[in-house]
Amino acid sequence: MNFAVIFYVLGFVLRIEGLLMFIPALVGAGYRERECIAFFAVGALAFLLGLAISFRRPKNQVFYAKEGFVCVALSWIMISVVGCLPFIWNGDIPNFTDAFFEMVSGFTTTGSSILTDVGALSHASLFWRSFSHWIGGMGVLVFLLSVLPMSGGAAMNIMKAESPGPQVGKMVPKLRESSMILYIIYTAMTIAEIIVYIIGGMPVFDAVTVGFGVAGTGGFSVRNSGLAEYSTFCQYAIGVFMILFGVNFNVYYLLLAKKIKQAFSSEEVWSYLGIIAAATLAIALNTLHLFGTVEETFRYAFVHVSSIITTTGFTAMDYNLYPEISKQILIFLMFIGACAGSTGGGMKVSRLIVLLKSVRNELSRIIHPRTVKRIRLEGKVVEHETLRSINTYFVALLALYCVSLLIVSMDDFDAATNLSAVATTINNVGPGISLVGPTGNFSGFSDLSKYVFCFDMLAGRLEMFPMLVLFSPYTWHQAFKRKKKKLDEA
Amino acid sequence: MNFAVIFYVLGFVLRIEGLLMFIPALVGAGYRERECIAFFAVGALAFLLGLAISFRRPKNQVFYAKEGFVCVALSWIMISVVGCLPFIWNGDIPNFTDAFFEMVSGFTTTGSSILTDVGALSHASLFWRSFSHWIGGMGVLVFLLSVLPMSGGAAMNIMKAESPGPQVGKMVPKLRESSMILYIIYTAMTIAEIIVYIIGGMPVFDAVTVGFGVAGTGGFSVRNSGLAEYSTFCQYAIGVFMILFGVNFNVYYLLLAKKIKQAFSSEEVWSYLGIIAAATLAIALNTLHLFGTVEETFRYAFVHVSSIITTTGFTAMDYNLYPEISKQILIFLMFIGACAGSTGGGMKVSRLIVLLKSVRNELSRIIHPRTVKRIRLEGKVVEHETLRSINTYFVALLALYCVSLLIVSMDDFDAATNLSAVATTINNVGPGISLVGPTGNFSGFSDLSKYVFCFDMLAGRLEMFPMLVLFSPYTWHQAFKRKKKKLDEA
Repeated sequence: MNFAVIFYVLGFVLRIEGLLMFIPALVGAGYRERECIAFFAVGALAFLLGLAISFRRPKNQVFYAKEGFVCVALSWIMISVVGCLPFIWNGDIPNFTDAFFEMVSGFTTTGSSILTDVGALSHASLFWRSFSHWIGGMGVLVFLLSVLPMSGGAAMNIMKAESPGPQVGKMVPKLRESSMILYIIYTAMTIAEIIVYIIGGMPVFDAVTVGFGVAGTGGFSVRNSGLAEYSTFCQYAIGVFMILFGVNFNVYYLLLAKKIKQAFSSEEVWSYLGIIAAATLAIALNTLHLFGTVEETFRYAFVHVSSIITTTGFTAMDYNLYPEISKQILIFLMFIGACAGSTGGGMKVSRLIVLLKSVRNELSRIIHPRTVKRIRLEGKVVEHETLRSINTYFVALLALYCVSLLIVSMDDFDAATNLSAVATTINNVGPGISLVGPTGNFSGFSDLSKYVFCFDMLAGRLEMFPMLVLFSPYTWHQAFKRKKKKLDEA
Repeated sequence: MNFAVIFYVLGFVLRIEGLLMFIPALVGAGYRERECIAFFAVGALAFLLGLAISFRRPKNQVFYAKEGFVCVALSWIMISVVGCLPFIWNGDIPNFTDAFFEMVSGFTTTGSSILTDVGALSHASLFWRSFSHWIGGMGVLVFLLSVLPMSGGAAMNIMKAESPGPQVGKMVPKLRESSMILYIIYTAMTIAEIIVYIIGGMPVFDAVTVGFGVAGTGGFSVRNSGLAEYSTFCQYAIGVFMILFGVNFNVYYLLLAKKIKQAFSSEEVWSYLGIIAAATLAIALNTLHLFGTVEETFRYAFVHVSSIITTTGFTAMDYNLYPEISKQILIFLMFIGACAGSTGGGMKVSRLIVLLKSVRNELSRIIHPRTVKRIRLEGKVVEHETLRSINTYFVALLALYCVSLLIVSMDDFDAATNLSAVATTINNVGPGISLVGPTGNFSGFSDLSKYVFCFDMLAGRLEMFPMLVLFSPYTWHQAFKRKKKKLDEA
């Protein structure tokens, strides 16, 4: 393990985080809040510490996949630890476990909260929570790649570990430019949605924070009531933007490159839109008796389906009141998640497509043993390697789900709470059902459970393997054995 | 599709079922019950009909995998339909849906019931219910192979479709002899356990019916209280025999062949025993405060863990009273299931081992990209084909689980009821938690849900693909296209 280069990258990440913290600090200063001091102070300290660590480029630039995975996992843990310090300092969230949970939830774009009253928080803290969604949405280290010159191998290995979806996109060869373009698209879309919300009558502070949440598919709200207080127009607009941010960003890239036909023929995006349409219709039909008008029924169904499948997690009413089947549909949507290459979490629609096609292939193999069919996605054959990694990812996800469920069950809440709490954190959604539903929160769980949720949120955001590699004893056993061997040789 | 040979096999199965029905008829006659007449009558009719259908051997003996899968799926549906007729006729279960559910639950060795009072049933009906577990346990068609001379290819294709576990055992080359030996082991063990139960103070009728349930890993009880009325000794004995019937029967075969060392080195069996020990300990520690003595706590934990992991489903008390984590452990055990090559259901321990090893392999691939490790089970490399079929089986199981859950949720029971009802039927266990727990039953579900459960029980017992092939429109589309082509040519 090349520790020198890992420290170097961590230092660089810390510098960026320090700088980013000045933004909530300035927001707080604008509102003349004392709470902003903590952000200035922690931001400055983080920047200086980062500068000290990453002052000199290490000589040994060897950077394999394992360095990439460990580096990404450590970075995400580090930014969450550092990012939660201002909450503790300024008293908005005095307890470390809670502050850390909130920050992990922010950066991983989950949006689950331990806060019982978000209205009591300072503007600086509220802004930082929502801003962390926006930062986490496109990946902290992919952002790094667009500003930090590193060898192609390193970039690729970081990209592999941090990017959502089964395959690293085709844009990788021109990695720096393409991640720049992605950031421009991301920023432009965020500005566009914020303008739309302001036109729809939202206060500017709300529009900006909700905008960050939607863009990063986060879901932290600055109101205890979620989206309920906003206008009907805004609720629809938020629903539409959530769907747009759940689309594979390659599609926007293709649109910019004027490859319209290719952009509109994405199998994953059409499946994703199809699932949204079907789920919205099913829930609307199932909940028609609960609301006054068809419009209201449809709006809630649409907003919640968009919110859950994109793993954003904003809510417009308490869907705990929905009948059982509608709640069940929402839980399935949590696992499906958005498209690969979007800011959303979950398994991703493309993985689901490949898994279901593998079952169909097995059936056709039984019926026609002599014709060998390959699985195709977007018209291209899915390589054996990719299929294997999708299968292992799926098994790892479910194994972590089961282990987490067992630990969390020790708190002895009801089954619906436990099942949905783990599902919503591991898929980076936000709210669950029952006690962790739209009107509830995660404050009631034990500290142990909260750390399990933190692990799950990080594992979910980084798609399992970075966290598993970091916490696998085998990794460290091997790393130290080599180190020792080298020292013995010297 | 070679329909002639499929009909021939179906006719043969019907003849066997007709003959087997005379046994409950005779039991009923022994108790001088009028209800036994229905069994005599249906048995005789089934035998004659079967004889008529399978009177002449078809000339075209072509029998590929698809014929095997369709044949097995149709046979299991047919024996359930025919097997439930006496219940309707003699009035013990007057409703067709309920009678069919009960019979599917019997043959698939599930043990879920729609009966609210089993004490009201005639001895003939009670005997037939439990006897169906024993018949279903080792597979109706594998039994057929031991008596019906068929070509090796046909035997292999039936074996593939009906046998539990990821690989058809090594005994296949000598298929007829080895299935005979398996039947002898099965029968001898059943007789042994019945004797033990009688020694333990159980009434003979109870000992025989419970014996059938344990052997087939079924779980229909002849008492409303389950095992609670039997002596402590009997409860322990039942626990031990459930575990023994959940062991891979190859182990007993090896013991008989005096390959003691090989028998005792089964990775699957040791993992299975390890899981049982760990789960029993965890539940016992978690439930110590609920019972008077350590013995009682341990006994219930032991009996329920053995009962659920082997997918038998006998219960000794209402484990709905257990804390949440203990119930969660039981639900996980449902999915794990017993060993491959046993009478138990679920995913099977060997599949779980392979899936978890595939995740471990992925991790080591990240840490050491240059060393290619193969997955091994019982010391032998797991072929790519086997791994693929385990993965597709797992995806198909979960996909069916999700679809079933959605349909069943329409009945609007609580989440724990729905989740566990589908889990318990798809894994052929028997009881679930909440409303379908030890003191509940499946009578409250809608007819639609009951048919979904029937499908799940059959799909679970036959490990997905036979039922999926039978109900895939593609199978029939292809079959009729070929038929038409042939007719056009002629």
